Amino acid sequence: MANSRLPEAIPALVDRALQGDRRALSRLISRVENGGVEAWSALALIYPRTGQAQIVGVTGAPGTGKSTLVSELAKHTRRHHPEITVGIVAVDPTSPFSGGAVLGDRIRMRDLSGDAGVFIRSMATRGSLGGLARATTDVVKVLDAAGFQLILIETVGAGQSEIDIARTADTVIVVEAPGLGDEVQAIKAGILEIADVLVVNKADRDGVQSTVNALHTMIDLGKAPTSVLHHGHLTTIAAPLDAPTDRWRPPILKTIASESTGIAEVLDAMAQHCAYLSDHPEGQQRAKVRAAIELETILREALLQRLLDRIGPAELNRTIEQVAARAIDPYSAAQQLLS
Amino acid sequence: MANSRLPEAIPALVDRALQGDRRALSRLISRVENGGVEAWSALALIYPRTGQAQIVGVTGAPGTGKSTLVSELAKHTRRHHPEITVGIVAVDPTSPFSGGAVLGDRIRMRDLSGDAGVFIRSMATRGSLGGLARATTDVVKVLDAAGFQLILIETVGAGQSEIDIARTADTVIVVEAPGLGDEVQAIKAGILEIADVLVVNKADRDGVQSTVNALHTMIDLGKAPTSVLHHGHLTTIAAPLDAPTDRWRPPILKTIASESTGIAEVLDAMAQHCAYLSDHPEGQQRAKVRAAIELETILREALLQRLLDRIGPAELNRTIEQVAARAIDPYSAAQQLLS
Repeated sequence: MANSRLPEAIPALVDRALQGDRRALSRLISRVENGGVEAWSALALIYPRTGQAQIVGVTGAPGTGKSTLVSELAKHTRRHHPEITVGIVAVDPTSPFSGGAVLGDRIRMRDLSGDAGVFIRSMATRGSLGGLARATTDVVKVLDAAGFQLILIETVGAGQSEIDIARTADTVIVVEAPGLGDEVQAIKAGILEIADVLVVNKADRDGVQSTVNALHTMIDLGKAPTSVLHHGHLTTIAAPLDAPTDRWRPPILKTIASESTGIAEVLDAMAQHCAYLSDHPEGQQRAKVRAAIELETILREALLQRLLDRIGPAELNRTIEQVAARAIDPYSAAQQLLS
Repeated sequence: MANSRLPEAIPALVDRALQGDRRALSRLISRVENGGVEAWSALALIYPRTGQAQIVGVTGAPGTGKSTLVSELAKHTRRHHPEITVGIVAVDPTSPFSGGAVLGDRIRMRDLSGDAGVFIRSMATRGSLGGLARATTDVVKVLDAAGFQLILIETVGAGQSEIDIARTADTVIVVEAPGLGDEVQAIKAGILEIADVLVVNKADRDGVQSTVNALHTMIDLGKAPTSVLHHGHLTTIAAPLDAPTDRWRPPILKTIASESTGIAEVLDAMAQHCAYLSDHPEGQQRAKVRAAIELETILREALLQRLLDRIGPAELNRTIEQVAARAIDPYSAAQQLLS
């Protein structure tokens, strides 16, 4: 007979995790990922300790070599600045059922795993729409509070929620690669607009210069920064309409991450963007947008949860059956549930 | 001086659109896309006319040739069954700013555009998380009510919201292709579980048989149908835990869409799946899951909108600023707004 153990109390777990106990940190992250009241109480406890880390989102289409770049950024940092600890959050939005962890990524990051100054966490989709964005932001907060000075969030830049995840970072690196197909190229149109640093990886491939040129052209054509900021409900409220005139122009850097080429330059650009944000009004504006995204995500989850708690599964199931049978349209059904 | 014209009244616009006026249909779709009260009233009007179309989601990783396949499915249907009209909804979740329409897709679908029996609509991300799923489902309803018998929804199968979009279809076709990279392969792990028909496109490429074999293995390993259904909040309520034992096994078909090869077989599989759904309890279960997804999406949007209307932008902005300045944590801020 196994002993049934009570789960650790959150305050004690938070204490241990923030004092450097890595297994406690893992458990705390799992509890935070699960969401709900427990996660809220943990986040309220750690919140005063957050706000110290440099948070960098790394995103790009499949096949650009994001994971390798992230791994190299971590390795280079650890080699040249051993005092800086690195947290990596690898978001895998497309394995909601397997529990995450893309095998290839794991292999690429293997040589980081022996380093106690690096903490890697894979995340898969949790709950439904919005759940992953909420969980990722929260896990980043835990790592921030636990003292990781550089936090790298890796997401495949394909869906809206992944774009939102990237936007919760201070600096967004968009990774491109020469010679991807039509449709892959199209994907970047959306994420290009959130790029602070553009990296053309796999720069030993044919077509690298035309990729770089295309990116320069797209940047010259003028991103519309305010439209980016006016995406969600709350971000519309958070961001003023006038864009700063001395806006940051995303540098375009070439790397061959698999050969550790060009990594220092990317880290330099990250540092420069960080300095820019602290000197310019855009830094504050971005903090507001980030707060707005966070708040909106939390509100969405909380509102639905409250409604479901109030109505109860029996009535919900009845309503779902009515909609399925076309006895009522879903809008009128929603209105009934809401009133 | 331009005359300022009032927007058309929704009931009149619905009438014209459902009577076959294509320009009215386009305008109605735009109004429905925009959401809000107007969309709700339009959808309530058209709802009794929906439920007639065969709705097929076509999804897959970038580079698999989804658009070409969709275009070929439409062409083949129109050539052999000219009485069947086809609606295509191309969802482009990664161009929230450009207003949609991937150039490559448009070119590939060009030869459909002269056919009055085909209606193509591109959709880009609208609003924030969940907005696109809501809008797509609603546009499909409009096309259904307007009498399109076959509706093809094309989404890149990369993010959770795109998976949710695919799941609103009766039949989900997941498109694969041989020789895509590591990371692209990984993407399919998630979407494979929602496949009713598997298509290995670009079957003239090297490695097609190993792709087919890998898919057979993955299917034999056993999909976990119930876990798929237990993804969202409401779907957990909607779907019973016991999976039917005589479950549909997704056929694996080879196509070369760019040469119109294998298209008839895909259409056959679609028809067989349609017949299966109407004969088996899974069809009803799926209708319930679809209703649950729809209801959840509508509730999420409506709940947030109601809250925002109640609070007003001034207070929201104040709260966002407090969170941004770390004067309050976002969870406590959300709790304040909710109470």
